[in-house]
Amino acid sequence: MRTVRVGLIGLGTVGSGVVEILSRHRADFVTRAGVDVEITRFADRSEERFAALGLPADACTTDAADVIADPDVDIVIELIGGTGVARGVVLDALAAGKSVVTANKALMASHGREVMDAADTHGVDIMFEAAVGGGIPIIGPLKHSLVSNEITAVYGIVNGTTNYMLTRMAENGLSYGAALAEAQERGFAEADPTADVDGLDAAAKIAILSSIAFNSRVTFPQVPVEGIRSLAPEDIAYAFEMGYVIKLMAIARRVEGGIDVRVHPTMIREDHPLASVSGVYNAIYVVGDSVGETMFFGEGAGSLPAASAVVGDVIEVARHIQSGCLALVGCTCHEELAVRDVGELVTEYYVRLLVADEPGVLAAVASVFGNHGVSIASVIQKRTTDVGAEIVYVTHRASERSVRAALDEIEALEVVDSVGSIIRVEEL
Amino acid sequence: MRTVRVGLIGLGTVGSGVVEILSRHRADFVTRAGVDVEITRFADRSEERFAALGLPADACTTDAADVIADPDVDIVIELIGGTGVARGVVLDALAAGKSVVTANKALMASHGREVMDAADTHGVDIMFEAAVGGGIPIIGPLKHSLVSNEITAVYGIVNGTTNYMLTRMAENGLSYGAALAEAQERGFAEADPTADVDGLDAAAKIAILSSIAFNSRVTFPQVPVEGIRSLAPEDIAYAFEMGYVIKLMAIARRVEGGIDVRVHPTMIREDHPLASVSGVYNAIYVVGDSVGETMFFGEGAGSLPAASAVVGDVIEVARHIQSGCLALVGCTCHEELAVRDVGELVTEYYVRLLVADEPGVLAAVASVFGNHGVSIASVIQKRTTDVGAEIVYVTHRASERSVRAALDEIEALEVVDSVGSIIRVEEL
Repeated sequence: MRTVRVGLIGLGTVGSGVVEILSRHRADFVTRAGVDVEITRFADRSEERFAALGLPADACTTDAADVIADPDVDIVIELIGGTGVARGVVLDALAAGKSVVTANKALMASHGREVMDAADTHGVDIMFEAAVGGGIPIIGPLKHSLVSNEITAVYGIVNGTTNYMLTRMAENGLSYGAALAEAQERGFAEADPTADVDGLDAAAKIAILSSIAFNSRVTFPQVPVEGIRSLAPEDIAYAFEMGYVIKLMAIARRVEGGIDVRVHPTMIREDHPLASVSGVYNAIYVVGDSVGETMFFGEGAGSLPAASAVVGDVIEVARHIQSGCLALVGCTCHEELAVRDVGELVTEYYVRLLVADEPGVLAAVASVFGNHGVSIASVIQKRTTDVGAEIVYVTHRASERSVRAALDEIEALEVVDSVGSIIRVEEL
Repeated sequence: MRTVRVGLIGLGTVGSGVVEILSRHRADFVTRAGVDVEITRFADRSEERFAALGLPADACTTDAADVIADPDVDIVIELIGGTGVARGVVLDALAAGKSVVTANKALMASHGREVMDAADTHGVDIMFEAAVGGGIPIIGPLKHSLVSNEITAVYGIVNGTTNYMLTRMAENGLSYGAALAEAQERGFAEADPTADVDGLDAAAKIAILSSIAFNSRVTFPQVPVEGIRSLAPEDIAYAFEMGYVIKLMAIARRVEGGIDVRVHPTMIREDHPLASVSGVYNAIYVVGDSVGETMFFGEGAGSLPAASAVVGDVIEVARHIQSGCLALVGCTCHEELAVRDVGELVTEYYVRLLVADEPGVLAAVASVFGNHGVSIASVIQKRTTDVGAEIVYVTHRASERSVRAALDEIEALEVVDSVGSIIRVEEL
C-alpha cells in the first residue's frame, strides 16, 4: 500500500480539524478504509499557525504555490475560502494533476463549472462535500445512492447561524438584535453577520445543491435572496398561533419550464420534520420520484464536523488513486434548465398590514386582493395599537407577481399605513 | 459507452419497482450518470409475473441459474429474500464473476462475512443499500462520507410497521390489536406480523449497521431482541406524561470492551429528533467522533423507495465496471469486537408495578431496589383499580442485571401483584 500524500492549504478552523482527524486516525484509516493518508505539506499566510498546531517546520510554507509544485503531493485540500486566491489555487492544483478537496461554497457556487471542467480535463477528482451542510453527507448521497431518482425538490435549512437566531426568537421571545448579539457572543455569528443574516451563505449552498439535484448548473448570482433582518417578533408569534414556524429556507424545485430556486424566511407547518430542526443544526430535505421524501440532518458548521466531510472526501480520492480510477464521477450538469423568475412563483402568502382602526378597511383591502385574483384563506385582526390596527392575511395559492401588485395598491390606500411583512408559506 | 447488462432475480414488490425505474429512466442515466444499464434477464418462480410486467418472454426464466449462467450478464440483482435459495444464488453469481446488488437483510445479517469474502475472492462488487432503511442512503454514507469518523453509536427506527403502530397507539389511543389490524388492512403489516412486531426485522438491520459502523462483524443471532407485543396503552400514556415517547429502537453503541447492540421498545425524550419520526417513516441517528450527531430520514419500505436504493447500487456498480475499478470498497470488518451481554447494560429503567392498595408497599419496594443498588429518580402512583394500585418508577442509571434481580425479588413480595412492564429509557 503506497502512502497518499496530501498538501493542506489553509489552517483556520476547518484546517486545524483536518490536521486533528488525520493525526488521530491515520492508522485506523489503513485498517478501516485500506488507505494510508499523510499530510506532507502545510500552507497558511500566518506562520504562527504552524507552531500553534505543532507542525514540522520543513513541511510548512506561506506560499500555496510551494504545495502545488511539490511533485510528491497527490491531493490538495483547499481551505482558503472565497473566490479570489482560492480559485487560482484550485485551478493550478488541478492543472498540476493533483486531485482537489475543498470546503469552498463560494467558489463552487460561482465558478463550479470552470473548476469541474478543469478536473475533467486533467483527469483528476474534485470533491466538496464540506461546502454544504458541514459534516452532513448530502453531496455524496445525491451523486450516488439517490442517483436513480429524478429529484423534484430540495428544501434546506443550511445556515446554522440564522437557524440558531430564529430558534431563540421563536422559543425564547428574543428580538432579532438580541438573538444576533447572543449568536455573536457564542461564536455562531461573525462580527459582520451579513453573509449569514442576509441569506448569502444559504444562497451559495442551494446553488450547489440545485446544480447536483437537477443536473443543470445554477450559480450564486441566479438565486433570489431575502434574509432575516426584517423579521418581526409579531410575525413569529402569528406563525406559531397558526401552527407554523418560520425558517430561513433554501429552496430548489423542478418546475414547468425550469428550476425555481430561492432563499427567504419561510413559514412551514410545525409538524413537518424540518420544523423541529433547531439551534445550529442543519437539515436538507430531498424529494425524489422514487425514494419519496428523505432528510439529512446534522451539524452544519464547526471545525470537526466540516473536517469530517473534508477527510471523508480525501479518503475517497485516496481510494481512487490507489485503484487507478480517478475521475469516476465528474460534473453531472448535463442539462440546461432555465432558472425561473421569482415573479412566476405560485404559493401561499402571509401578509401583515398596519392599518387605520376604522370601518371599511377590510372591505377596501379585500377588494384590491380580489381585483388581482388573490383569494384569502384566513384573516386575523387582533392587535390594536396607539397608531392603529394590525391585520394578518394568509392567501390561497397565488402568483408572487399578483400578490406584489396587490400589495403596492394596498399600501397606497388611505386607510393603510404600511405593509409590515410578507412571508411565503410553503406546503411541503 | 458499453451497455451494462443486468439479470434481475425476484419480481415481487421491490423487483417490479426496479423494472419501473430502469425502464422510465434508462436514457436519463446515460446523460446523468454516464452509464447505460439494461435488464436483459428476468427470473421469478411465478411465470404470471412476466406477463403482468409486460416483459419479453425470451428474456424470462423460472430458473435463477439461467441468469447466473448467462455470460452477457454483468450484474445480478437478488430480490428473492431469505437465507435459503437466495444465499446459493448470491454465492453462485459471485463465483461466476458477476457483481451482486441485493436488498436481502436476512442474508447480509446472517451470512454477511461469507458473501463479502466471496465478492472479495472473485474481485467483484456486492452492494446492499436497500437492506436497511429502504430508500434512505445510510450504508453509502457510512462507507464513504462518514468514513473519517469513529462511529460511537447508531440509533435506528428501522421498522416502518411497528413505527406506524406505535404512532397510532400514541397519537390516537389505539390498542396494540387495533393498531396491528389497521396496519394489516393498509398493507403495512403482513398476515403473520412476527418478523416486524417481534423486532426480528430490526435486529437484522442493526446487525448490518453495527458491522459497518464499528468495522466488526455482528450477526443477527447476536442481537438481543424484544418486540412490541406486550406494550400496554398505559405505558404509552405514562411516557407521554413524563415527556417521553416509546419507539422500537435498534441500538448499537461502541462501549468499553466491545459493542452494545439490541432491539427493544425504548423511551426517548419527546424533543429528540427521533421522537418526531412518525408513521411508516424510518430514521437512523448516527453519532461520530468528528461529525457529531447526524440523522438520515425517509421511507423505510415500499416498492419504489427500496428500488431507488437498488438501482442506485446498480448504477454505482455499472460505473465501476465501466471504469475497470470493481471491488473498490469491499468488506470493512477489520476488527474483532465482542458483543457485550445485555446484562452489562447500564441505563435508566421505567418500571410499572401492579400492587396491593395498602400501606407499606412503597417502603417494601424501595427497600428491595435499594438493596440491589438501584436508585429511583421518580415515582408516580396514581391509578387505583378494582384489583389494586399501579406504581410507576423511573430509576437512575443502573445495570440491567441489578434491575432484573431487584424485580425478581419485588415480584415475589406479598404486596406486589406483578411487574406490568419494564422499558429501557435511553438518554441520547
